[in-house]
Amino acid sequence: MEVVAQNRSFDGRQTVYRHGSEACGCDMTFAVYLPPQAESGPVPVLWYLSGLTCTHENAMTKGGFQEHAAMHGLALVFPDTSPRGPEVADDEAYDLGQGAGFYVNAKRDPWKPHYRMYDYITEELRGLVAGLDGIGERHGITGHSMGGHGALTLAMRNPHLYDSLSAFAPIAHPTRSDWGRKQLSAYLGDDEGCWALHDSTLLMEERGWKEDILVDQGASDQFLELLQPEALAEAMTRRRQSGVLRMQHGYDHSYFFVNSFAGDHVAWHAARLA
Amino acid sequence: MEVVAQNRSFDGRQTVYRHGSEACGCDMTFAVYLPPQAESGPVPVLWYLSGLTCTHENAMTKGGFQEHAAMHGLALVFPDTSPRGPEVADDEAYDLGQGAGFYVNAKRDPWKPHYRMYDYITEELRGLVAGLDGIGERHGITGHSMGGHGALTLAMRNPHLYDSLSAFAPIAHPTRSDWGRKQLSAYLGDDEGCWALHDSTLLMEERGWKEDILVDQGASDQFLELLQPEALAEAMTRRRQSGVLRMQHGYDHSYFFVNSFAGDHVAWHAARLA
Repeated sequence: MEVVAQNRSFDGRQTVYRHGSEACGCDMTFAVYLPPQAESGPVPVLWYLSGLTCTHENAMTKGGFQEHAAMHGLALVFPDTSPRGPEVADDEAYDLGQGAGFYVNAKRDPWKPHYRMYDYITEELRGLVAGLDGIGERHGITGHSMGGHGALTLAMRNPHLYDSLSAFAPIAHPTRSDWGRKQLSAYLGDDEGCWALHDSTLLMEERGWKEDILVDQGASDQFLELLQPEALAEAMTRRRQSGVLRMQHGYDHSYFFVNSFAGDHVAWHAARLA
Repeated sequence: MEVVAQNRSFDGRQTVYRHGSEACGCDMTFAVYLPPQAESGPVPVLWYLSGLTCTHENAMTKGGFQEHAAMHGLALVFPDTSPRGPEVADDEAYDLGQGAGFYVNAKRDPWKPHYRMYDYITEELRGLVAGLDGIGERHGITGHSMGGHGALTLAMRNPHLYDSLSAFAPIAHPTRSDWGRKQLSAYLGDDEGCWALHDSTLLMEERGWKEDILVDQGASDQFLELLQPEALAEAMTRRRQSGVLRMQHGYDHSYFFVNSFAGDHVAWHAARLA
């Protein structure tokens, strides 16, 4: 694993790594923030999965998470959103191919050889991160938009891997949205039965989450019709799922929304990972 | 004045404006953050001048200032760093021409017609900002690198315009640095006598600042030889200038440094602008 960049940040350390990924069959880049508390021993970790078009960098530079992670003694992991490189299949659209991995393992060509973000996040990168100095045993997960979808689906399917869960403006019902049907069809094929494992509303109906969940959604989000927070809200309440879904007045889908509530999410995870 | 973008941020409002600039003879873009307190009446303003290669956007998205400005009830102004556009003279180097206005009024061609960032910041944009709803009478100024140079020189030359002053890793002695001699020569000509008004170390020796100053400098900054904080430190102490110059262990020149101390600077200005 190669260190691409390292910067001191809030008395901790923000590092960008590159490594050859077995799951994705290409080089992958990710970032880890270690708070100052990690110098004295392992600390809990919060994973942040990013949205369409993002790399590891967006939330690392614009999310405002480090300040709060340093305060609460939490490490942060910022993975990329897809395999990358000239040898990796891509599409002209911003919402398919590179930058749009959707946190699934693709079953169809041309995506099948590299698009294995589900395995990459839950297995390969999980192992790499666990091997870093300062990283403790307890892991939380959150994410924004496509990454909120990733956080919710990966956690509900792997409750043994994650101890706390939240999301920012998640793509909440991809099997019924143009942000979802297109990608699930391309990556997984036309058998919609296979899609249900990648839809947080359906997973919420079917299994829910073992603890409480925090979901923030901007009430002025320009993508509300694609995100469908109402589907997740209905599923959560119908299941009597512990949790909080906050419609935030006036907020849109941007990182100005994410960083406005980054502090709340870090505190939420820190309390549950302590 | 045209609103290019507006996003809710920490219960306040982050707005990007574009306007035809008389001083610069081209369209200029800048950003203003209004904290929630501005809804009830005018609030003090902190100006943030950016460094080489930056636009209004860098600090607006990566500086982490809004969270603290919302806490303290301070507005923020993020100007661009130079005139822009195909009709505006430029240079292939990153440190001359567009993105590198150095906060001076150019006297030489080809820069003279547009490069008037000194007048733009202290007069034209000052007037525009003062006319916005929610903007109060008291103004502080800070900046990073070339923008730290801008903040220090503009404030020391215009103490009637600014009530508080700080800087992040300023280019502290441009008349004796390759970050300065090249640009001052290009924009102002070879008479070094004219350069002294654009050198914060020399201005500190000659006039100082009416109140206390806060300067943060990363001790592992990769540009220390170009910034020359030791020159400013000597001038400040020799003059018995009230203030604090902090060498911050391990920090470099990046926005990871700036946002690590954004909270301290906002609190510093808020206390002095109240």
